[in-house]
Formats: sequence, structure tokens, C-alpha cells
Amino acid sequence: MIRPLAVALGDPAGIGPEIVAKAWSARQQHALAPFFAVGDARAIARVWSGPIAPIDDPARAAAAFDEALPVFGGSGARAIEPGHPDGESARAAHDALELAVGLTRSGAARALVTAPVSKVELYRIGFRHPGQTEFIAERCGIAPDNAVMMLAGPTLRVVPITTHVPLAAVSGLLSVDLVLAKARVTARGLTRNFGIERPRLAFAGVNPHAGEDGAIGREELDILVPAIAQLCDEGIDAVGPLAADTMFHPRARATYDAALCCYHDQALIPIKTLHFDEGVNMTLGLPIVRTSPDHGTAFGIAGRDIAEPGAMIAAIRMAASAAEQRQAYAREQGAQ
Amino acid sequence: MIRPLAVALGDPAGIGPEIVAKAWSARQQHALAPFFAVGDARAIARVWSGPIAPIDDPARAAAAFDEALPVFGGSGARAIEPGHPDGESARAAHDALELAVGLTRSGAARALVTAPVSKVELYRIGFRHPGQTEFIAERCGIAPDNAVMMLAGPTLRVVPITTHVPLAAVSGLLSVDLVLAKARVTARGLTRNFGIERPRLAFAGVNPHAGEDGAIGREELDILVPAIAQLCDEGIDAVGPLAADTMFHPRARATYDAALCCYHDQALIPIKTLHFDEGVNMTLGLPIVRTSPDHGTAFGIAGRDIAEPGAMIAAIRMAASAAEQRQAYAREQGAQ
Repeated sequence: MIRPLAVALGDPAGIGPEIVAKAWSARQQHALAPFFAVGDARAIARVWSGPIAPIDDPARAAAAFDEALPVFGGSGARAIEPGHPDGESARAAHDALELAVGLTRSGAARALVTAPVSKVELYRIGFRHPGQTEFIAERCGIAPDNAVMMLAGPTLRVVPITTHVPLAAVSGLLSVDLVLAKARVTARGLTRNFGIERPRLAFAGVNPHAGEDGAIGREELDILVPAIAQLCDEGIDAVGPLAADTMFHPRARATYDAALCCYHDQALIPIKTLHFDEGVNMTLGLPIVRTSPDHGTAFGIAGRDIAEPGAMIAAIRMAASAAEQRQAYAREQGAQ
Repeated sequence: MIRPLAVALGDPAGIGPEIVAKAWSARQQHALAPFFAVGDARAIARVWSGPIAPIDDPARAAAAFDEALPVFGGSGARAIEPGHPDGESARAAHDALELAVGLTRSGAARALVTAPVSKVELYRIGFRHPGQTEFIAERCGIAPDNAVMMLAGPTLRVVPITTHVPLAAVSGLLSVDLVLAKARVTARGLTRNFGIERPRLAFAGVNPHAGEDGAIGREELDILVPAIAQLCDEGIDAVGPLAADTMFHPRARATYDAALCCYHDQALIPIKTLHFDEGVNMTLGLPIVRTSPDHGTAFGIAGRDIAEPGAMIAAIRMAASAAEQRQAYAREQGAQ
């Protein structure tokens, strides 16, 4: 039996239901592995006229997948209007996420894909995690620093070492230990999820021109240089710190498997400049495979049938591929 | 008589002489306006076997240009080895720059293009400006804050509001006045040099997601929002602060003429990711037109005949075009 992927619908007032349904419609064109939506089937029916197959067991998803979009779970909430998020839609997003994580942890689904949620609405109903990633990490028993956000597109993978913090706080948050933690998880994640035997990590400097040997800031000398030396000692292929502005053109990108960046925009500007419509967010360091499309809820266009499913399709493909790689890796490890 | 452009050779131990000579070789293919090199003809002859026409008056450049690369000036320095910069090569770079600025200020040349120099070597011989741009600004009697570095490629123009400073210092250096000064010069520069009647300026936020209304940093609310409001009051088309990571994909780039960014890498990552081999640095706010290729001396490949002249060719084309736009603009202003 083919174990399906679980796709949490995210905030049902956003574009999640629409792009999940559109991904199902494109399943043959993109050779998508069987998946099922987790959430309220009515949220999909409201924005999409295709066939839906409510299922009461994930094991029925694969058989239903050819003919209809399998949907599991769903709340008894009142009808939610596309484009109008509120406490109820946030609660539905939360419940779908919780359920989908549990199904993946239990093995009923072989990987987790999550559609976008609204953090603002989640905070209003008492959600205490910075985002879905930290919630999933906690449910998996992983410390936040060991759950690594990687953004991946067809020609670039980036990892921000610090994430949603003020730019002025970045320097104070960086440490050798933090860099080491993120880099080790990244290296291991590239091997397990992408089958890259000896991943090449490239580190961006914090400062312009990577600090010019201390002339424009010392974080490179004090933090990145010793961290990179330590990683090399551990047998990890790590280079840098490199000038951030010259490491993302095509020839430079060909020299590494992931760029480790010191702050949010240093990582997200290049990936979104290059791969805005097909960027995938993958969480490394978890016992489960988890991906999501690298965009938001897009409440402004929800329910208008104009949302592009490209990033969701890419997220589903990457999750399926990573799940296969992990199985192969586990077999190899077992065989040794 | 066609007034030529002056192209300073930069550090003769770098790739400057080679890319200037290669640009001349490509003059017909790229319909380049007549230019002459400023510096030591021997530095060119050492790395290039094409025809050189030493001239003792810039007025002779246009006539010579069809048949040979016109070269003006040049020091009596000993032979300089490609790839081996030293005090003497730095001195030659400095003298060529000084001479080329003077010729452009006087009107003997109609625009200035500068090949790369080594700041490290220049500092060793007592150069006290952060870079060529500040030197040129001083020679033109312009305060540093009013000389604006713009990087331009075929599909994007960016202006860093702060430049070669540590990332941790950015927040403290930003001010409403600084943003206003840079924005006004940028708007005027886009009109004078590019003929854009009502330039559209887009401002990047400092923090992730442009600070999320103060949740991730306050520079947006305290500095950018009031500065942008003031600019709009002045009749300048200014929008933002925008999330920096979502403003450089193709659809976003189509909505503005220049992106004003808060720090070096925020501006230089997208332009070099997109236009690494054709990026041009133009200084706005000067009484003269000045451009340069957006790359360094590349000492490591100097003298090996493998340097790509693409960015130098783009710099020469942009300088010629800007000089024409300025003439047209001056005529219009005169006619009113």
C-alpha cells in the first residue's frame, strides 16, 4: 500500500484550500504522489468545483486519489468566508495542523505539507509559537535551534541562521554554537532528505564584503571563521565567510548545496528574487519530513480562483522525494 | 565634433586595461560612442595586442577611435606586472582618476567611466577617501551624502542608503534626513540621467517583513514611514516600506524605477544575483556623469586574457546614454 502525504489546509480563509485542490487537479501533469488534505472539506468545496472524497482513514487516501481529492478531518465550524480570517478560521488552521502532524508522526502519512496560516490570527486565539515550524518542532520533541528552516528552489537552497528578529539584533544573536547547530542540522538534512552524500555548505558573511578582514565588522573573525573551522574538523565541507552579494549568481550557486545566511533577508532576498513562484520551505532536523509553499495566506485574493498552485505543487513534490530519500538512507544505514 | 568619454584605467595591475581594450574591440557590435582611455598605454600594450593611438589632446580621440584605442596621459612609472599591485600601480590608478575627473569637469570629456582600483593599495599610499566615488564627489564639490551610489542592470536599479558599514551599525546610521537626501538625489538623477519624468521609488524595510508594524523592529515606523510621507508631499512617487524579500521578483520589479535599500547587501544581493556580469555603478548627484563596472580589480586573473568586458561595455553605454539624456534635459529646461 502506498502511504499518502498529509497536506494541512492552513487558514481556510486564505488560498490554502484552493491551491491544494489545484495541486490535485495537476497530479498527473506533475506526477504527484498520493496525498490527502487535512481540514474542512467545505472550505475546499466553497472555492473549487472538482470531486472531493471525504475519508475517515488515511489508509483510504491512495485508493481515492485517482478519482477525487481525499479530505480527512475537518471541524464543525460555521462556514468561513474566503478573505475573511477570524478566530474561527485560525482555530480550523490550528486543528488541521495538529491533526496532520499527529498523522505524520504516527506513520499514517509519510510526510507533512502545510498550507499557509495567519500568525496574527493564531496569536489572537492564544497560539504561543513564533510560527508553524516551532509548533511542529515542539510536537516532535525537537528544540527550536535544532529545527532548521531551509528555503529551496530549483537552483538555490538557503538557510537563515537567525530568522524573524530585528536587523539590529542579529549581531548579538549570532554565536559559534548557534552557527554550529544550524550547520550540522543542515548538513545532515541535505544527506537524509536530498541524498547528497557530502553536502557543500557556503557561509555568507554578516557585513558588507564579509567584513574585509575586520575592517567592516568583526562577526566574521569572531564567530564565522572559528565555526567554519570546527565544522571542517568534523568532516563537513564548509567554506566562507563569503561576501553575500557575490555568492548568488549562477556560477557561484553551482559551487555549494546550501548557503547559510546570517539573517532573514540575506537568505530570503536571493531565493525569492530567483524562485518567487516555486520556493519551498523545508524544516530540517525533524523526525518527520515537513515542507510548505514559501508564501503567505494571500487573503486578498482568496476565493477568486486566481491563486497559483506552483509553490504548493513544488512543496508536495519535494516532500515526496525527501520521504523516499529518507527511506533509502535508512535502508543503507541498516545494511551497514 | 563628438566629445568623447573618458575611461580611467584603474589599477593597471588589475583587469582594467584589458577590459577597456576589449570594450574598444567590441565598439561596433555594441555601437559604443567614442571614448579614450586615461592612463598608461604600456599597461594596455602588456595585455592586449590591438592598435593603440596615444593622443595628447582629448579632442583627437573621436577621430582616432575608429582605427585604434585612443590613450591619454600615463605616468612615467616603471613597468607594472598584471596581478601584482603595489604602491606604484596604486599611484598610477590615482593619477589616472584625477586626470579623468579633471577632463570631464572641464568638458573635454562628456562623461567619466572608471575601471576598478584597489582600496587597500590606495590607502597604503595615503588615499583618504572611502572609495573612488567619494574622491570624485569631493573634486566636484559635492558633500558625500549627496553623492548617491546606484547599481543598475537591465531589469533593476538599486540604491543603498548606507554603504560600507558594519551591519550592526546600520540602524543607528539611518535617519529621516539621510533617507530624504538619498531619495531626492535618486529621483532627480533618474530624471536627468535616464529621462524618467516621474520616477517611482520603492523603499525596502530594514527588518524582516518590513517590521510587521513594529513587531520586528521600529525603524520602519520611526524613520521610513515619515520620510516616505515627506517625499510624497514633495511630489516624489515613493512607496513602502516594503518587505525586502518580496520586492525583487520580476512582477515586483516592474512596479518601480529604483529600489532604495537600507544597507549594502540588501541592495547588492538582488542586483548581483540577477545581473552579475552586466551591473553598472552610477554616481548620482554629481555635476558630471560617472559610471563604473560593478566588479573589482580581479588581480587573480589579470593579464591572462580571460576577463569579461561585459560590465565595462555596459558602463560605457550607460554613461553615453546619460550624457545624452542630460543634454536633452538641459535643453528642455532652457526652453521653458
